[in-house]
Amino acid sequence: MTPAPELFTQQWFNVPAPITLASLRGKVVVLHAFQMLCPGCVKSALPQAQRIAEIFAPDKVAVIGIHTVFEHHAAMTPVALDAFLHEYRISFPVAVDVPGEDSPIPQTMAAYGMQGTPTMVLIDRAGNIRRQTLGTEDDLRVGADIALLTAESWNG
Amino acid sequence: MTPAPELFTQQWFNVPAPITLASLRGKVVVLHAFQMLCPGCVKSALPQAQRIAEIFAPDKVAVIGIHTVFEHHAAMTPVALDAFLHEYRISFPVAVDVPGEDSPIPQTMAAYGMQGTPTMVLIDRAGNIRRQTLGTEDDLRVGADIALLTAESWNG
Amino acid sequence: MTPAPELFTQQWFNVPAPITLASLRGKVVVLHAFQMLCPGCVKSALPQAQRIAEIFAPDKVAVIGIHTVFEHHAAMTPVALDAFLHEYRISFPVAVDVPGEDSPIPQTMAAYGMQGTPTMVLIDRAGNIRRQTLGTEDDLRVGADIALLTAESWNG
Amino acid sequence: MTPAPELFTQQWFNVPAPITLASLRGKVVVLHAFQMLCPGCVKSALPQAQRIAEIFAPDKVAVIGIHTVFEHHAAMTPVALDAFLHEYRISFPVAVDVPGEDSPIPQTMAAYGMQGTPTMVLIDRAGNIRRQTLGTEDDLRVGADIALLTAESWNG
Repeated sequence: MTPAPELFTQQWFNVPAPITLASLRGKVVVLHAFQMLCPGCVKSALPQAQRIAEIFAPDKVAVIGIHTVFEHHAAMTPVALDAFLHEYRISFPVAVDVPGEDSPIPQTMAAYGMQGTPTMVLIDRAGNIRRQTLGTEDDLRVGADIALLTAESWNG
Repeated sequence: MTPAPELFTQQWFNVPAPITLASLRGKVVVLHAFQMLCPGCVKSALPQAQRIAEIFAPDKVAVIGIHTVFEHHAAMTPVALDAFLHEYRISFPVAVDVPGEDSPIPQTMAAYGMQGTPTMVLIDRAGNIRRQTLGTEDDLRVGADIALLTAESWNG
Repeated sequence: MTPAPELFTQQWFNVPAPITLASLRGKVVVLHAFQMLCPGCVKSALPQAQRIAEIFAPDKVAVIGIHTVFEHHAAMTPVALDAFLHEYRISFPVAVDVPGEDSPIPQTMAAYGMQGTPTMVLIDRAGNIRRQTLGTEDDLRVGADIALLTAESWNG
Repeated sequence: MTPAPELFTQQWFNVPAPITLASLRGKVVVLHAFQMLCPGCVKSALPQAQRIAEIFAPDKVAVIGIHTVFEHHAAMTPVALDAFLHEYRISFPVAVDVPGEDSPIPQTMAAYGMQGTPTMVLIDRAGNIRRQTLGTEDDLRVGADIALLTAESWNG
């Protein structure tokens, strides 16, 4: 199993202080990478992430959004993201990925080898990547996969 | 916990021989009670049951439909159900509930105390009722609930 | 232009007496042919027909359903149709097509040369067929086509 | 009837040169006011406007978008709008409304007395406002209303 790389973040919304994956050991983490102008994210993946955050107990499952802007950088600024999260009623913590130094690909996106948005990463209680999917997944399957990870034992 | 009452059935579709709940011990059973002319069943609950049957491994989860006709008895006959299941591409086993002797409520429906259709009953690996819901449930929650039941240990 | 053949009907629902197309001259007629166990009819075409009946003024547009059973005859009986119309809250007039004498195709269906269900026929104020479509059509286009027919002059 | 006020615009997309309503006399104009971060616009009203542009003949109906930003001004800039229109495959002409001088309400929005977004204005062939609606409208009704306006005579 592959340990989930730590997040590179430059700003957070919906949370008083930055969050690290390390601090979430013991919980299942649903890492949701998106761009605010990606139609598939807006139509399907972000609403799904929001419902995951509402349905699963927060002491068992943490939903974390990460705004991985790899195109239209001048449009999808943190100021614009702030308005977007407000208008779309996204209430789970969302981080802004750190821009790449010599690349349009931001650093968390690169560390995970993500190929686009939306990407969902399921991280188990021990901090390992258990699934990484580009595109939207069926609710039934996602619900089952997250639940099974919460049922795993963990010696933290 | 309440043991799930055995099914009262008079006819089966999509399966070569009748099925008993007793024979399914060790599997999670998703019992889906419906009527073929119930709009909520046709629009939401039956398609959900079909997707459950497709997503979960058949050695872990058994989806069983039961046609619990409590109204319009002359319309929802077994002959009509046969055509319905064919047209809607329902492929999991479906039983016809046994009509009530002095009541419009058929016998399995009465034994479970179902209040209408659609009703979904989740039965654990030991044969106990763990949830019974009237109406359609969110896919994420249903997927999670079924998955958690499959993760329970069972000494059969 | 082709004059719309008169309907062959053996029973009517949602109306006190049989209706003829001849009696509707001066109105646009939306003739909606369906089967109660046809998934595309139930999911899309019948709800569209119901909304047409609600949106257009009844003195300008008449929506008429016709139950053109060409398969599963034992399932889709008039008794079953009665229950179906009640459960699905269909309120416009619906006729039962007359069974074919030596054919599974009923007589109105044959007279119009319909290839399946759902089929929508738009009949102008003078009684001519102006469009006949198998399958469901886009609401915007259907709304526009019906409206244009209502705007045509008619010397009745 | 109220003549439609001329548009105040500062920039156009999807068209080589600015458009005036005056230049569109003889056509029905569907004026669609939106904000790129308005969920109801993104989910329903903009896709509807795009389909109107595709279904009606361009010599009879002109669909014009106007980006009437009255909140989150720092987020919904013309640069961001450009990316948005690209990602959402909006192909009809879209103008940027001129910011208000002492008001958050832009000038076209103020001239029409619009109360929010999405707002759809139907302008007849003679340049009069025939309907102005806040929120999304049923496709059937919108299709019918536009079609009826195209059928009106016009002495231009």
